[in-house]
Amino acid sequence: MEIGLIGLGRMGFNLALNMRDKGHKVVAFNRTAEKVKEAEKEGITGAYSIEELVNKLTGRKIIWLMVPAGNTVDDMVEKLVRLLNKRDIIIDGGNSNYKDTLRRYRELKEKEIDFVDVGTSGGIEGARNGACTMVGAEEDVFKHIEPLIKDISVEKGYLHTGKNGSGHFVKMVHNGIEYGMMQAMGEGFEILEKSQFDLNYKEVARVWNNGSVIRGWLMELAESAFRKDANLDGIKGIMYSSGEGLWTVQEALELKVPAPIITESLFMRYRSEQEDTFTGKVVAALRNEFGGHAVAKK
Amino acid sequence: MEIGLIGLGRMGFNLALNMRDKGHKVVAFNRTAEKVKEAEKEGITGAYSIEELVNKLTGRKIIWLMVPAGNTVDDMVEKLVRLLNKRDIIIDGGNSNYKDTLRRYRELKEKEIDFVDVGTSGGIEGARNGACTMVGAEEDVFKHIEPLIKDISVEKGYLHTGKNGSGHFVKMVHNGIEYGMMQAMGEGFEILEKSQFDLNYKEVARVWNNGSVIRGWLMELAESAFRKDANLDGIKGIMYSSGEGLWTVQEALELKVPAPIITESLFMRYRSEQEDTFTGKVVAALRNEFGGHAVAKK
Repeated sequence: MEIGLIGLGRMGFNLALNMRDKGHKVVAFNRTAEKVKEAEKEGITGAYSIEELVNKLTGRKIIWLMVPAGNTVDDMVEKLVRLLNKRDIIIDGGNSNYKDTLRRYRELKEKEIDFVDVGTSGGIEGARNGACTMVGAEEDVFKHIEPLIKDISVEKGYLHTGKNGSGHFVKMVHNGIEYGMMQAMGEGFEILEKSQFDLNYKEVARVWNNGSVIRGWLMELAESAFRKDANLDGIKGIMYSSGEGLWTVQEALELKVPAPIITESLFMRYRSEQEDTFTGKVVAALRNEFGGHAVAKK
Repeated sequence: MEIGLIGLGRMGFNLALNMRDKGHKVVAFNRTAEKVKEAEKEGITGAYSIEELVNKLTGRKIIWLMVPAGNTVDDMVEKLVRLLNKRDIIIDGGNSNYKDTLRRYRELKEKEIDFVDVGTSGGIEGARNGACTMVGAEEDVFKHIEPLIKDISVEKGYLHTGKNGSGHFVKMVHNGIEYGMMQAMGEGFEILEKSQFDLNYKEVARVWNNGSVIRGWLMELAESAFRKDANLDGIKGIMYSSGEGLWTVQEALELKVPAPIITESLFMRYRSEQEDTFTGKVVAALRNEFGGHAVAKK
């Protein structure tokens, strides 16, 4: 198929190569021209403006957005709307909040432009060699793009999750689960680390990856990380986050689903970004007030 | 090798078959004779008393305990001590608390009987066809039994974790991580279930198992469960527990490791076993006291 790909970041660039390998014609645009030039060296057709990108596509046009969630998506959609024809398809393959996706779907529906949300998992490796894709789309639009979705996904690794928004929604929940799983693993390894036993974490991760109940890709990544740095001495335990965990917790609150594990995993990430806490100061001060307990002075 | 196996429960019986398949001579005893008869039909040598079991073994005897954690292990060890010779080996392949293991190791050391703790993961399927084994043992004792351990484990699925106690310790933490992972998955699926989207959970689990970050055996089991019962209508959401999660939390407390996810996963299991809570009654009563807020009457 012909695809106009907007955004050649780490995910987008690898996705372009993935599409190319499967015989698709990719026309790619990126905010900075350098990346477009790089893509051209890889046999991808470069475009140096959105207009050029759209003009280089024929028939029912398919535009795949792989840009940061938020305003960038809206900006791109706004520009595209002026250039596309009815029944052309815009695919948002980024990590957009599903509520934004629902809004964009409604807005584009009025303009008779088809919109699809694709949640993508599997990291850079997945984008390059076969991702896991969750697709929210109207049935006939999904059927139209299914060959492309199938090609960029790992075997059995794509799903038409349902109506528009559901792809990004399922991907969001996927990330929420990921937060909880990773925090559970982190805590487990810290208990091992603080214990009386002298354990080789790489070997523990390795044995857990072979035949145990908790085997899986995240444990394989842990094995890989411990192989590179046996006790992770080279990094700090700061756990950044990029939104999907937060959205999952917000969703849990709206739906009144008790989700303490996902929520607490998010809070532990925030805690890890703090050097000291005001909570701690307040509690220390109170202990000192009522019981004369020691406080650590600054 | 020759192994005296005590305990033909679901794990023990399948482990006996696994050992047999690998060419080991298994002599098996079980509290109820029926299971021994069943084992005999499978080409396993039956023993109808501990004495008979020990007498049917030659050379440096290896006894593998696959009995419930706690007193049963102590009872068996006590009986065996009277029958075994110096340097014979008792292997505890059950889910014993590592502190009991350390105590038993010290007691048996005085009697010059070797003791080994094997944490086993992978469920019944693993016991039958290849488990994940974590082995705490003195170096020379481990070397002696390594061929057996290797044979019953899946490829790359065994590890000499270190000194005595470490096998059960690492298995305990494995189960703690498992609690957190499972609770995270549970919460994620409940958010999907309460959402505005009409999702097919089996298909979601299936797509997550192919190429996603959270792919792994637990998600495969989720896929399998949803395949049998699309919305899990046939079961209640009561999450029993059998000790290892609790021990992990107790260990975290002793070591002062903040482990909110594993801890809360355990508490959510306890909560699931309660129909109603006294906490809830207290909070409802207080809301009524200070603000006249409604209470649900019994």
